Amino acid sequence: MNDKPSAAPIAAIVLAAGKGTRMKSDLHKVLHPLAGRPMLLHLLDNVAALAPARTVVVVGAGRAQVEAAVAPLGAEVVHQTEQLGTAHAVRQAETALGGFAGDVLVLYGDVPLIGTATMREMLDRLHAADRPAAVVLGFRPLDPAAYGRIVAGPDGRIVKMVEYKDATPEERAVNLCNSGLMAVRGEDLFALLARVGNDNAAGEFYLPDIVMLAAADGRASAVIETGEAEVAGVNSRAELATVERAWQDRRRAEAMADGATLIAPETVWFAYDTKVGRDVTIEPNVVFGPGVTIADGAIIHAFSHLEGASVGAGCSVGPYARLRPGAVMEAKSRVGNFVEMKKAVLGERAKANHLTYLGDAEIGAGANIGAGTITCNYDGFFKYKTKIGAGAFIGSNSALVAPVTIGDGAIVGAGSVVTREVSADALALVRPAQEEKPGWAARFREKMIARKKG
Amino acid sequence: MNDKPSAAPIAAIVLAAGKGTRMKSDLHKVLHPLAGRPMLLHLLDNVAALAPARTVVVVGAGRAQVEAAVAPLGAEVVHQTEQLGTAHAVRQAETALGGFAGDVLVLYGDVPLIGTATMREMLDRLHAADRPAAVVLGFRPLDPAAYGRIVAGPDGRIVKMVEYKDATPEERAVNLCNSGLMAVRGEDLFALLARVGNDNAAGEFYLPDIVMLAAADGRASAVIETGEAEVAGVNSRAELATVERAWQDRRRAEAMADGATLIAPETVWFAYDTKVGRDVTIEPNVVFGPGVTIADGAIIHAFSHLEGASVGAGCSVGPYARLRPGAVMEAKSRVGNFVEMKKAVLGERAKANHLTYLGDAEIGAGANIGAGTITCNYDGFFKYKTKIGAGAFIGSNSALVAPVTIGDGAIVGAGSVVTREVSADALALVRPAQEEKPGWAARFREKMIARKKG
Amino acid sequence: MNDKPSAAPIAAIVLAAGKGTRMKSDLHKVLHPLAGRPMLLHLLDNVAALAPARTVVVVGAGRAQVEAAVAPLGAEVVHQTEQLGTAHAVRQAETALGGFAGDVLVLYGDVPLIGTATMREMLDRLHAADRPAAVVLGFRPLDPAAYGRIVAGPDGRIVKMVEYKDATPEERAVNLCNSGLMAVRGEDLFALLARVGNDNAAGEFYLPDIVMLAAADGRASAVIETGEAEVAGVNSRAELATVERAWQDRRRAEAMADGATLIAPETVWFAYDTKVGRDVTIEPNVVFGPGVTIADGAIIHAFSHLEGASVGAGCSVGPYARLRPGAVMEAKSRVGNFVEMKKAVLGERAKANHLTYLGDAEIGAGANIGAGTITCNYDGFFKYKTKIGAGAFIGSNSALVAPVTIGDGAIVGAGSVVTREVSADALALVRPAQEEKPGWAARFREKMIARKKG
Repeated sequence: MNDKPSAAPIAAIVLAAGKGTRMKSDLHKVLHPLAGRPMLLHLLDNVAALAPARTVVVVGAGRAQVEAAVAPLGAEVVHQTEQLGTAHAVRQAETALGGFAGDVLVLYGDVPLIGTATMREMLDRLHAADRPAAVVLGFRPLDPAAYGRIVAGPDGRIVKMVEYKDATPEERAVNLCNSGLMAVRGEDLFALLARVGNDNAAGEFYLPDIVMLAAADGRASAVIETGEAEVAGVNSRAELATVERAWQDRRRAEAMADGATLIAPETVWFAYDTKVGRDVTIEPNVVFGPGVTIADGAIIHAFSHLEGASVGAGCSVGPYARLRPGAVMEAKSRVGNFVEMKKAVLGERAKANHLTYLGDAEIGAGANIGAGTITCNYDGFFKYKTKIGAGAFIGSNSALVAPVTIGDGAIVGAGSVVTREVSADALALVRPAQEEKPGWAARFREKMIARKKG
Repeated sequence: MNDKPSAAPIAAIVLAAGKGTRMKSDLHKVLHPLAGRPMLLHLLDNVAALAPARTVVVVGAGRAQVEAAVAPLGAEVVHQTEQLGTAHAVRQAETALGGFAGDVLVLYGDVPLIGTATMREMLDRLHAADRPAAVVLGFRPLDPAAYGRIVAGPDGRIVKMVEYKDATPEERAVNLCNSGLMAVRGEDLFALLARVGNDNAAGEFYLPDIVMLAAADGRASAVIETGEAEVAGVNSRAELATVERAWQDRRRAEAMADGATLIAPETVWFAYDTKVGRDVTIEPNVVFGPGVTIADGAIIHAFSHLEGASVGAGCSVGPYARLRPGAVMEAKSRVGNFVEMKKAVLGERAKANHLTYLGDAEIGAGANIGAGTITCNYDGFFKYKTKIGAGAFIGSNSALVAPVTIGDGAIVGAGSVVTREVSADALALVRPAQEEKPGWAARFREKMIARKKG
Repeated sequence: MNDKPSAAPIAAIVLAAGKGTRMKSDLHKVLHPLAGRPMLLHLLDNVAALAPARTVVVVGAGRAQVEAAVAPLGAEVVHQTEQLGTAHAVRQAETALGGFAGDVLVLYGDVPLIGTATMREMLDRLHAADRPAAVVLGFRPLDPAAYGRIVAGPDGRIVKMVEYKDATPEERAVNLCNSGLMAVRGEDLFALLARVGNDNAAGEFYLPDIVMLAAADGRASAVIETGEAEVAGVNSRAELATVERAWQDRRRAEAMADGATLIAPETVWFAYDTKVGRDVTIEPNVVFGPGVTIADGAIIHAFSHLEGASVGAGCSVGPYARLRPGAVMEAKSRVGNFVEMKKAVLGERAKANHLTYLGDAEIGAGANIGAGTITCNYDGFFKYKTKIGAGAFIGSNSALVAPVTIGDGAIVGAGSVVTREVSADALALVRPAQEEKPGWAARFREKMIARKKG
């Protein structure tokens, strides 16, 4: 019945006024992160793909937190001072939306996995030939439990919507349940909402009532269906973990389908925006924070942690590598075990293989950074830059006190503390003479053994 | 029928005489750890919550190991020299318990998850109005396999207990199985045990026989039920892993319900005594050994390993942080990647962000410990202490040779080996001059390239 | 019917000509690793246990890659220039096998888990009293989907083999499916193959057709069955991950049955050749690359990564230890957190507990390697060796510039850069005097605070 995609302007109302008591958190429920991004923003990203004219988030407590989070996305926040039910919550958007002449999607901030395609499908159904008054998103859960039921004809036209507690045994046997998400025309929505009453046990104004109110006017509504996973809600940290797992499993499958090997996919955690190339291998136990790009043919060894980092083609990372924001590995460069990079560029084929900290640094192509090298980039107040030239060789256990420059092809002797520029092709040494006290160790041992006994 | 909680004195007999052959271990089966604590001690902890008058552990081989483990808990160990069956094993406790006039719980050292509430329920049932001779703990396994069956009335009064191999098809169809755990009055237990025979295929004396012996005297016994997970037994390392998993899953759910976010709960391993606050975030892959407390609002990043450590409010740990016993992080302090702490206090807002070892140290509030700092706390014989004052700044790659004190607000230059006290607000430098040999690196390269070719 | 094991010579034909498009990889599908070894080689290892006279791998694209991989195992590679179906693929081996007078196994490079026992069983069935023309390996999948069906009598004699799309509803109801693997006598195989036609929808020559061709000659074939897991095929990286998981789960169970504790078995990844002793404990999150042996009583702490390493009895490894190829830990030695070993021997009871790199080194019994020690083994061109004597003590943060020898019982002071030999029992110190600039830090702080404000 989706004759043609609707071209009406779109507004989204996102309900986020629930108290989230079961989260036991000072952070607003809808701001708890999923794949490294607040769950509400996952939803708003999917809304944004529809290019909506307006997005209104209805918030109860924690308004300031939510406002700060959604401001960069251009969403408005309205405040529901009292929590009197979902219909009442949607009405709070009435002033903000004025006489909005377009389609309105009603979404939930704690139901974050709804995809753009499903939203689009709801809107298109609203404009199908039979012109439903509202479109309800239904699902068939494995365990329908106490969800409200939707009785509908084979064409998806809704015969009845009923709360579980009011349902007859026959209605309860229906396994098509109401997710709460709806699409309604702006001109209908607030008019219908104004007629919703609160004559029920909880004394609340329920959004689904508009379906039966429209039906009383002779206007049927329609249901479309999606899978249970897409409408999973988050009311506790356990449910948050379940939704995270579902998100990760989907993302892992995508990465493998796109040509990456995940030896143990269940132990790789992606962020919402991780980009992974072809013929990339990811060993067990790798964590991606936001902002990571992995080019083709790279290998990410076990126990690596990457965030805000770019890994070039054919690079080798880890095991136990930590790439922090601003880490850029150019093609075929290598970062090995117990190495941390932050705001640092490692040139093509350059290597930092062991026990190293590279912060605020530029390392030229083919340079070799010895084990235990530290860029001393901080004096307690400001950060300074270290530049290491192409082909330079930094001896092990060196400290490079920034700001400092090591020229192309220069060598720094092991154990040096470099405080001044090293010229290209020069050797820098910062090393006192080695002294030896013969027999000292033997005498020390005797003394200590005696003391231990004593 | 639990008219009132019983106030009779309690004794626990814990059978731990099995050979544990399938463990293939030199360690006694019941001492294999679960969540960082020997499984027997998990059980004895739960017993201890009943404040028993006596706890007797019946051991066969490996007696010395078990005695050493249970001594701190005040449990007695008796020795079963021959393994002649469970009834025979329980009889070994007779001398130790003398004429104990109270209730006796019979438990199993390799069935470690039995909770105090279930034990209490068994004892209370023993004192219900119908005065059962014994209370048997039953369960309904998914796969009843070859477990002994319990035929009981709706009131839980036992009609018959039968070994699987002796059971009729009808009896086998009963899915209520015998866990082996029992509660019996002391005055009944040993009298009944004395009448148990070994006229069976294995020639063993079976504990459950006392139920039918009492029935022959006209005294019925009762069954109460619990879930299969609580009576899971450990006979192999695979079963140990299964029980560990069950324990961990329960603990993970508790931590989330209490207000901690576990991004990937299946990758967080708690110890038996881990304490986790509210709004704590635990990233994937964190291992807790015994003795850890995490205060509210702390974040434990991925790949961290904590044992015997206290993490203050708002602290940040890891990734790749290892906190060993005696590590104390005060509020809002930070320990970063590849950092190890042992017997060390990190003051409020102090930081040790990279590649550092802090052992036997006190670090004042707001101090900054540079990358690659090592406290040299050991001379091969004794350990010595390092004190770092509030607001001090330790330059990268420094070695602090203990015993040594760095005053408040002092600065230690990068790469220093500090062997003497540094005064408050002073700068300490231990650094030879930087020398440069121009062109040396270029000549070295030529020579080496020639040697490689040659 | 397995009257006696067959003693006929054996040839294996391994089909590996599929394009593997879904892998999206430049690496040939059958070379993707499973437990650290190309999946084809897992299969060839199992074939090798039959001591076959000939092994022929039929390859399409990527021939050079496969040839290089199988060359060390003595397998031949033949090239199928066009992919015209499985019967056509097997015919490519005809020239190579000439008039091979023995039994031929037809296997698939992307069905890597087939065990030697199953291959043996197929061959033995071929020589049973009823002399089947061919033996087909069947399986009963949970979801038979579109697999070809095998209609067979209770004696395993095949009545009909039928492609799913040609099957009647009754035939589809049969859940015995064709894995594609077969055993056929050499004298039959190529004669039958020559008669296979390609008169089907795909225009391909199908190997299973030989069964019905033999039947038309009055010679029945037989089916034997195996479990679904053993015939799992790999056509995508997701299937590769599934097969890897199955392999790992089996290996984990074996390790536990053999007397190792795996606290969280699902987080331990073995390589194809990992050897684990008795009373070994492996904490969560341990990755084994190829070539690792763990002796009895060792403990591998969490987050360790071992490859090509030998861990002696009673050793302690990690957490966060990386043992690279050539790492040898002698009995009761210890390697702690953030320590890397490569081509290095750590003597009995020696310790390297923190933040250390030991490369190309020999460390004597009982030596103590302080935190932050680095063996500087590389000058950018060659690698050099470090020898540390028995009982030596290397102070923290030392750099040992190889080639260098530290004598037995010698002590190296903390923070030293050792470039020359240290005599036995001597103390080596490489350390400038400590200077102090009183009040400097306070003045610096004032200046910096002013600059931050300005």
